[in-house]
Amino acid sequence: MKIDPDDQKTSESIRQLMDNVAIVLVGPKYPENIGAAARIAANMGINQLIVVSDEPFDQERMSKTATHHNSRLIDTMQMYADIGKALATFNWVVGTSARQGRQRRLLTSPRRMVADLLPKLAENQVALLFGPEDCGLTNDQLKFCNSVACIPTADFASINLAQAVAILSYELYTGVVQFQSESAGKSSAKLAQSGELEGMYDQIELTLHKMDFLKEMDYGYWMHNIRNFLGRVGLRSREVKFVRGFCRQVVSLAKEKDA
Amino acid sequence: MKIDPDDQKTSESIRQLMDNVAIVLVGPKYPENIGAAARIAANMGINQLIVVSDEPFDQERMSKTATHHNSRLIDTMQMYADIGKALATFNWVVGTSARQGRQRRLLTSPRRMVADLLPKLAENQVALLFGPEDCGLTNDQLKFCNSVACIPTADFASINLAQAVAILSYELYTGVVQFQSESAGKSSAKLAQSGELEGMYDQIELTLHKMDFLKEMDYGYWMHNIRNFLGRVGLRSREVKFVRGFCRQVVSLAKEKDA
Repeated sequence: MKIDPDDQKTSESIRQLMDNVAIVLVGPKYPENIGAAARIAANMGINQLIVVSDEPFDQERMSKTATHHNSRLIDTMQMYADIGKALATFNWVVGTSARQGRQRRLLTSPRRMVADLLPKLAENQVALLFGPEDCGLTNDQLKFCNSVACIPTADFASINLAQAVAILSYELYTGVVQFQSESAGKSSAKLAQSGELEGMYDQIELTLHKMDFLKEMDYGYWMHNIRNFLGRVGLRSREVKFVRGFCRQVVSLAKEKDA
Repeated sequence: MKIDPDDQKTSESIRQLMDNVAIVLVGPKYPENIGAAARIAANMGINQLIVVSDEPFDQERMSKTATHHNSRLIDTMQMYADIGKALATFNWVVGTSARQGRQRRLLTSPRRMVADLLPKLAENQVALLFGPEDCGLTNDQLKFCNSVACIPTADFASINLAQAVAILSYELYTGVVQFQSESAGKSSAKLAQSGELEGMYDQIELTLHKMDFLKEMDYGYWMHNIRNFLGRVGLRSREVKFVRGFCRQVVSLAKEKDA
């Protein structure tokens, strides 16, 4: 088969974009599901797998469902006990949720999530976050997310973990292929890392406390809201520094008042 | 929760469209894959499962991966030894293929297949056809198909059977939901009005000035940035009020300092 040099260049840039994506499984219960997730992720061009868990998993049971062809994702899999550490260097974190409860952050569809993500992908490390089989991500885990995708279902039932990974990875891969063929080389902005955002949120909460801005019971609600709207923005490092500098100055004003 | 009669009507017409769809597994090898396919099909609103095979399958192994909630598709599953008989009453048959060989019929993507199918769905019985785990549909089996969808992959490897069912069912279900909602009334989150945003931006700029936060020449640059990132968020009224309340308190702190 003759290969068109333009096609080859497109394939290479698709590969480069997909290299910026990691699947992060938080607290999975069954090694078979990790293997099945690794297989479909590899099918869709994803090369990084991270598991957040205290316990090691049976290598053989993982590799069996991953199949020989795709076991490299299992071989290079990273394990973390702490979700914050696992995500610290990522610039954009997408959560997944089956539920649409009141307390949930504004949910988006997988397709809109991908459309929003594509312009950022060239310059940023992206994590797709999946919760445990039985209960999904907790609100505390969803706090790390810049956006949360909900796979629409007809029966409101939860989807098998590897199936959820399949649908999100498929949406992302097909989105990337289309994006590349439509726009050869548009640049995107480098976003702040998850660790920088967490530092900023801590400082905002501290600042609000120093100001006695809210009734004690309202801090949870408003920090949730602030994370929600600042998370969606896609802040850059210098914007995070701006917010933190602003908070520092507000705190010093509040101190002078008390002094 | 109050249910919007329009929403209810939309749900009902989505259900009616999905009732015209069947998953047809041709020669599957493992009962676990039939169960997993049944589960995700039910998740995506599909209520018919047909298996083309000479041999019966272990009910327990099928039901286990289907999960209790979705076992009705296993309970009502139809078996045929002959593919022609299995498909006889369908009006539109979509095949699936991983391969793009010379002998293959013109392939389409899952998304284009669905777009093509949607206008036909109200009036026609549709079958989505999947081949055995190891080799996919033969050319003889593909002959029954009106169109053949190929799931794009990065590595040209075959996808697990239930994952393929997941991706096609998901594409179809999301396509049907969008198709229905485009004709019915749409609702989305109510955002703050432009005037509210402008008031907020003015107050932020005033606040930064009162704090002597920036060098005079930098206000233009940073207000542009703040508008840029807060503008992207899609703030609601109560979030705008929160930001304005925060600014007011910061200004009063700054005044006390000067006083």
